Amino acid sequence: MTNAGTSRRRSIGAQRNPESQQAILKAAEAILMEDGLAGFSIEAVARRAHAGKPTIYRWWPSRAALLLDVYHHQKHVERVPDTGSLETDIIAFLTALFGYWRDGNAGAIFRSVIAEAQTDVKATDALRAYVLDRFSQSAEFVRRAQARGEAADWVSPELAIELLAGFAWNRLLTSRLDDNPEELQRLARQISLGLKG
Amino acid sequence: MTNAGTSRRRSIGAQRNPESQQAILKAAEAILMEDGLAGFSIEAVARRAHAGKPTIYRWWPSRAALLLDVYHHQKHVERVPDTGSLETDIIAFLTALFGYWRDGNAGAIFRSVIAEAQTDVKATDALRAYVLDRFSQSAEFVRRAQARGEAADWVSPELAIELLAGFAWNRLLTSRLDDNPEELQRLARQISLGLKG
Repeated sequence: MTNAGTSRRRSIGAQRNPESQQAILKAAEAILMEDGLAGFSIEAVARRAHAGKPTIYRWWPSRAALLLDVYHHQKHVERVPDTGSLETDIIAFLTALFGYWRDGNAGAIFRSVIAEAQTDVKATDALRAYVLDRFSQSAEFVRRAQARGEAADWVSPELAIELLAGFAWNRLLTSRLDDNPEELQRLARQISLGLKG
Repeated sequence: MTNAGTSRRRSIGAQRNPESQQAILKAAEAILMEDGLAGFSIEAVARRAHAGKPTIYRWWPSRAALLLDVYHHQKHVERVPDTGSLETDIIAFLTALFGYWRDGNAGAIFRSVIAEAQTDVKATDALRAYVLDRFSQSAEFVRRAQARGEAADWVSPELAIELLAGFAWNRLLTSRLDDNPEELQRLARQISLGLKG
């Protein structure tokens, strides 16, 4: 999948070498698995990946940015849902997100990044960039609903996703990720039909 | 403004002495004002209020619980909106919340409690209890909309508030509280009319 010969110039001016980038991400994942969040530091990742700290910092400006990349890489199972209906897409989106956060360490990783973002401006920047990118990706299923005529043209797909994500964050951050299909159904209905019903 | 006799917290079985409760809250507020979050501890509050630490802990089981009470007390300006229309109530709710978080130290206090709740189970419990209580209070304006026939009977007022609050949390936690009245209007419309429009 990687071909270092074709590596392109990126914004900062640093060459991201795909192989060492992958090696760093793999090292970061391994450290998270073995030592947990407490053992996760740029220093530990550098040691394990046989990379220099400056190399890591050139690509990931903060521990939070690297954590978010690991978090997102693990999340490759999650795709933008496409069940053919807006209401069931909403349910699928939330069910997948809750499940992902509950199983394994993804929920704990994301919670720790959010916590760090409340005191560390670099972490806030990394988190904000990450969520804005995710919102615009996930908004795809609302755009599809618009194309099908299931959602009005004046609706903002990004705002719709932000509402869903905000709801999910609140559940995560207050440890309320229990499955409640009936509740998610009602929520999806409230969002797609609106409060007027 | 305060009437400790109507204090909401009766569960633990401890009798809250209204006067010393007020003294503790006032001391906590003063410490926050003067020393900021870093200087805020149960110990510092006890010293300033001439109260025993066990007394404080009996009423507020964690630093987070006391912080949330101070936060909520400061928030007496915020009321459940009643503009006569669901859509403008939603806008008023979010505008007041964003303004409250932006001005003064309320946003910083709330962010720090949320951060603490990601590593400290007592803080999680305090935060969860607080938000569930708030959701059910704020849901009042959606219930009124139901009574007016502006919202459907099958709608859950609490879920509607949770969506709004989640959206607001996400903005707060990623430092995106800028005023954007046009965006809030669109959001309120999406929520009240639904994505179908």
